[in-house]
Amino acid sequence: MKNYKGYLIDLDGTMYKGTEVIEEAAAFVKRLIKLEIPYLYVTNNSTKTPEQVAQKLRDFGIPAKKEEVFTSAMAAAGYIYEQNKDASVYMIGEEGLRYALHEKGIHIITDSEGADFVVAGMDQQITYEKLAQACLAVRSGAKYIITNGDTALPTERGLLPGNGALTSVITVSTQTTPLNMGKPEAIIVEQALKLLGIGKEDAIMVGDNYHTDIMAGLNAGMDTLLVHSGVTTLEHLATYENKPTYSVNSLSEWE
Amino acid sequence: MKNYKGYLIDLDGTMYKGTEVIEEAAAFVKRLIKLEIPYLYVTNNSTKTPEQVAQKLRDFGIPAKKEEVFTSAMAAAGYIYEQNKDASVYMIGEEGLRYALHEKGIHIITDSEGADFVVAGMDQQITYEKLAQACLAVRSGAKYIITNGDTALPTERGLLPGNGALTSVITVSTQTTPLNMGKPEAIIVEQALKLLGIGKEDAIMVGDNYHTDIMAGLNAGMDTLLVHSGVTTLEHLATYENKPTYSVNSLSEWE
Repeated sequence: MKNYKGYLIDLDGTMYKGTEVIEEAAAFVKRLIKLEIPYLYVTNNSTKTPEQVAQKLRDFGIPAKKEEVFTSAMAAAGYIYEQNKDASVYMIGEEGLRYALHEKGIHIITDSEGADFVVAGMDQQITYEKLAQACLAVRSGAKYIITNGDTALPTERGLLPGNGALTSVITVSTQTTPLNMGKPEAIIVEQALKLLGIGKEDAIMVGDNYHTDIMAGLNAGMDTLLVHSGVTTLEHLATYENKPTYSVNSLSEWE
Repeated sequence: MKNYKGYLIDLDGTMYKGTEVIEEAAAFVKRLIKLEIPYLYVTNNSTKTPEQVAQKLRDFGIPAKKEEVFTSAMAAAGYIYEQNKDASVYMIGEEGLRYALHEKGIHIITDSEGADFVVAGMDQQITYEKLAQACLAVRSGAKYIITNGDTALPTERGLLPGNGALTSVITVSTQTTPLNMGKPEAIIVEQALKLLGIGKEDAIMVGDNYHTDIMAGLNAGMDTLLVHSGVTTLEHLATYENKPTYSVNSLSEWE
């Protein structure tokens, strides 16, 4: 497994595809466990709690604990905590984001007036009022954060609007560019490395999507491993200038 | 009143501001009525029926009939009718849009599968499911129309998200640019002129907002009258290259 002391690993397209586990990826993680190499699953999904994410992996037969999961919601909560742990935060999002903010002891307000931060993650219960509250706060000077900028969510029904599309309501209306906590930004990777307690020079980012996983690693200045099990094909990769450190067709090739 | 045979007149900022009538504008319309010069109120608001708009004007003491109102919802319905009167349409919007489509006998579907058009207007009851349905249809090839692209709505609470912000969810997620029916596009003006039965060379567009009202007139190739009673100040106007044909501080100056 080369000499990396820690791994950051993407989920969708890397560990599983939709409702099917990728067996080679499961075997890869079991090898990491056997070799006692620490790792974290790093996901842009802000809707689930770490335990829910871990449970999904266990349902696929992949050993996983909640402590091994780092979500974009946790990155957002960590960022706000570092900036101002007494901040008042207006949030749009689901259980995962609420949980992450609570874990950091961050004060969530339900009326956006006086908010120091607006943090917006995927919310299938989105309403006009939530968007209006967010816009008013951002116009009043609240710092505007999104958990991730993914514009389309792959589902059984087809590509549905992702958080980057939903939050464009706020971005477009207030003409304010949000601070993005998710991949391909470095911040989620840097926070995950901090949690793992391993320097970027000793770690590697593993994922199937060049534009999110690999770019996040490149932006953080760490080594990267692209696996062609999901979004980015060999043909796509040939057209990109900044290559990942490694690329493999399957994680079974990684030794 | 110069020699114009017809007037297209904006509402918010031109006839009233928020909850207050602009008296000079009311007097201006009464002069048009006295001189028997035809006119239409042309509004980007797609949420109200023509009768609701007329009632609001009457509440301000301005004589108004529903036949004198032309909304962006009517422009959208008119456009779809001209393109394909048997089209299946998936709509997001409020009563004004539904009414306009019904008036043209257009078939509204509640499941977007098989939609020929997606038409999206302001909808304070927006849901993730409505946006998802719209995205799926646009990705499947439905023509994507918005009633207007206004990004912010002035309200007593402050600037809230407008239709151009709400529909950016669909635009960003599907990477499809919508066909905009509202001002500043020419289409709403051209349809209003058709309804008025007057050529663009004999008509003038009156409004307070350079970027919507005046641009719509300029885009349609007709004369324009900017009134500094709302959005665009004298100072703003000085910075724009394409000037309106006329500008006045108040419609009482217009003779």
